[in-house]
Amino acid sequence: MSAGPVVVLAGGVGAARFLRGLVRVVPADDLVVIGNTGDDMWWQGLYIAPDLDTVTYWLAGVADESRGWGLRGDTFTAQAALADLTSEAWFQLGDRDLATHLYRTGRLSRGVPLHQVTAELAERFGVRSRILPMSDDPVETRLKTAAGDLHFQEYFVREHWRPLVREIYWTGIEAARPAPGIAEAVAAARAVLIAPSNPAISIGPILRVPGVRRLLTAVRGRTVAVSPLIQGRAVKGPTVELMRAEGIRPDALGVAQLYRDLAAGFVLDAADAALAPAIAAMGYRVAVRPTLLDDIAAAREVAVAALDLLRQPAAA
Amino acid sequence: MSAGPVVVLAGGVGAARFLRGLVRVVPADDLVVIGNTGDDMWWQGLYIAPDLDTVTYWLAGVADESRGWGLRGDTFTAQAALADLTSEAWFQLGDRDLATHLYRTGRLSRGVPLHQVTAELAERFGVRSRILPMSDDPVETRLKTAAGDLHFQEYFVREHWRPLVREIYWTGIEAARPAPGIAEAVAAARAVLIAPSNPAISIGPILRVPGVRRLLTAVRGRTVAVSPLIQGRAVKGPTVELMRAEGIRPDALGVAQLYRDLAAGFVLDAADAALAPAIAAMGYRVAVRPTLLDDIAAAREVAVAALDLLRQPAAA
Repeated sequence: MSAGPVVVLAGGVGAARFLRGLVRVVPADDLVVIGNTGDDMWWQGLYIAPDLDTVTYWLAGVADESRGWGLRGDTFTAQAALADLTSEAWFQLGDRDLATHLYRTGRLSRGVPLHQVTAELAERFGVRSRILPMSDDPVETRLKTAAGDLHFQEYFVREHWRPLVREIYWTGIEAARPAPGIAEAVAAARAVLIAPSNPAISIGPILRVPGVRRLLTAVRGRTVAVSPLIQGRAVKGPTVELMRAEGIRPDALGVAQLYRDLAAGFVLDAADAALAPAIAAMGYRVAVRPTLLDDIAAAREVAVAALDLLRQPAAA
Repeated sequence: MSAGPVVVLAGGVGAARFLRGLVRVVPADDLVVIGNTGDDMWWQGLYIAPDLDTVTYWLAGVADESRGWGLRGDTFTAQAALADLTSEAWFQLGDRDLATHLYRTGRLSRGVPLHQVTAELAERFGVRSRILPMSDDPVETRLKTAAGDLHFQEYFVREHWRPLVREIYWTGIEAARPAPGIAEAVAAARAVLIAPSNPAISIGPILRVPGVRRLLTAVRGRTVAVSPLIQGRAVKGPTVELMRAEGIRPDALGVAQLYRDLAAGFVLDAADAALAPAIAAMGYRVAVRPTLLDDIAAAREVAVAALDLLRQPAAA
C-alpha cells in the first residue's frame, strides 16, 4: 500500500470499538478520523459533540467502555445538582466530562473553529491520531417522530429511542462545508474505511456534507466498508429503526447497496456469510469475519481484513 | 413604618453578611435585593453572576461562608479536570455550583431574561426574598490597570487584585435599563438600605444604570447606607484601592459624601465614632455600631440600627 493516511468515517461507539483495533494495525499518527457532528447540540449553554468525544476518549484509553460514553471513573455531582434544578437534566455529563465541554464551549465562544478545538482536545488527551469533525458548520440530525419533531439526542437519550420515526432530516446541511483537512486527507488516503456505524444517522450526515460524496467516489478503489449489522440486528441502539426510516434495507445487503458507489471492499459478519455472494455480485471484494467488536482482538481482526481487501486485485 | 418592601442595594459577600442579619428583622418575603451585575462575565461558555449567586446562596443558607463564594461542601472535580486542559481555569466553580451556572446559561440561551432566571434560581434554592439583577442588559466593570485593561474578575480572581488600578469604567452601562420590578420596588419601599458593599464597584454600577439614581433620590428620606469601611480599611478585598481609583475618599466620610443625595441615614463603625459629627453635619441621621458582620447577631444589630434611623424625625 502507498503512503498516506488511513481515513475512517466514524460515528460514536461502534466506530470507537473498531478504531481500538485499527490502531493496533495502523500507526496512530497515520490515522485520520472524520467524525459525525449531526448529533451535536447546545445543551444548558454547552456545545455537546457526542461522537467526537466518544472517538477521542476511546482512542485516548480513558473512555467508560462498558457504558459507551463519557470518562471511566467519572463522578456525577454536577449532574445530580442540575437534576434538582430542572427537568431538562436528561443529558448525562460526568464532572470531568463537563470540563471537556467547558473547554470546548469556551474556545468556540471565542471564535475558534470546531476542527481546531477538536484537535486541541485530542492533543490534551494524548491522542496521536487526527480527529476531524465532518464540518465546522452547524448540522443537526432531526427526526419527525410519533412524539414530535426531535433532535437526535432528544429521541435517543431523552426518549430512549421509543417513538416511531417517520422521517430523518438535517438542518444546516446544505450550507455545511467539509472541515479543513478532509479533502486533503481523503485524496491522499492509502485507505478509507467506513466504520461499522449507523449508516442512517452516523455515516449518513458525513456523506451529506456537500462535496464529501464526490471526494469519496474518487477514491472508491481504496475504500472498504464494515457492516454495522449482524443478521439484521444492531449491536446497540436504534440502527435498524433509523435505517428503515431512511428506506435502507436493514441488513448487510442494504448497507452494501448504500455504499456501492463509495467502497470497493466490504466486511460482513460471519453469521451473514450467506449474503457474501450477493454482495460480491455488486462488485465488492468481500471479507467475512466475526464483527461483534467486543474485544480488541476482534476489532483488530476486522481492521486487518478490511485493509487486506485493498491488497487484492480488483473484482471482475 | 408603612407597608412596602425593604429594598437592599447589594454587592457580594459584604451585602450577604448584612442580609443574613436583616432577614432576622424583616420577613424574608418583604425583602427585595437589587444585585450588582457589573462583575458578571462569560467564562468557558457559562454566564457567571458572582454577586447574584452569593446573595442567593447566603440567603438560602447553603453558602460556603468561610470561603465567601460558592456552595458549602462542594467538590471541585470538574475544575481540576479543566485545569488539566487549559490555563484559563482560573475562575473557580465547584461541581454543584456548576449546575447553577448550567441552569442559568441554558435558560439565558433560550432568551429568558436574567431577572427571571435569577428568580427561578432563588425559588429553587428556597429563598423567599426577591433577588433582582440591577439590569437584564449586559454591563461590564472593567479596569485600566498597570497590567492592562481587565474585566473585574480578571483583576480580582486571576490577578489577585495586585495590579495598580488607574481607572474604572463600564461597558454597556449607557444602554442598560433597570431590571423589571426595580422601579416599583423602590417607589413602594418602606426602607431602602445600601449594604456595606464596595461603593466603587458593587454599589457604583447599580447607581450608574440610567434611571436608578433618580428613583433613589426620590426616596432619599427612606434610605440608609451602611459603611463598608472600618477605620479606612475594608473587611475583605480591594475596596480601598478601587475607591481611590474612583476618586472617593476611602473612609466612612468618603462613603457618606458619596451617598449624601441618596440616603438620609448612615451607619458607621464604632471605631469611626469620631467621624459621626461630620457625617451628621452633612444632613444624615447617624448610628454608630460594630459593623464587622462576622456573625449573625452583629449583622442583625446593624440592620436594626439602620431601620431605627428611619423611625427618627428628620435631621435639622
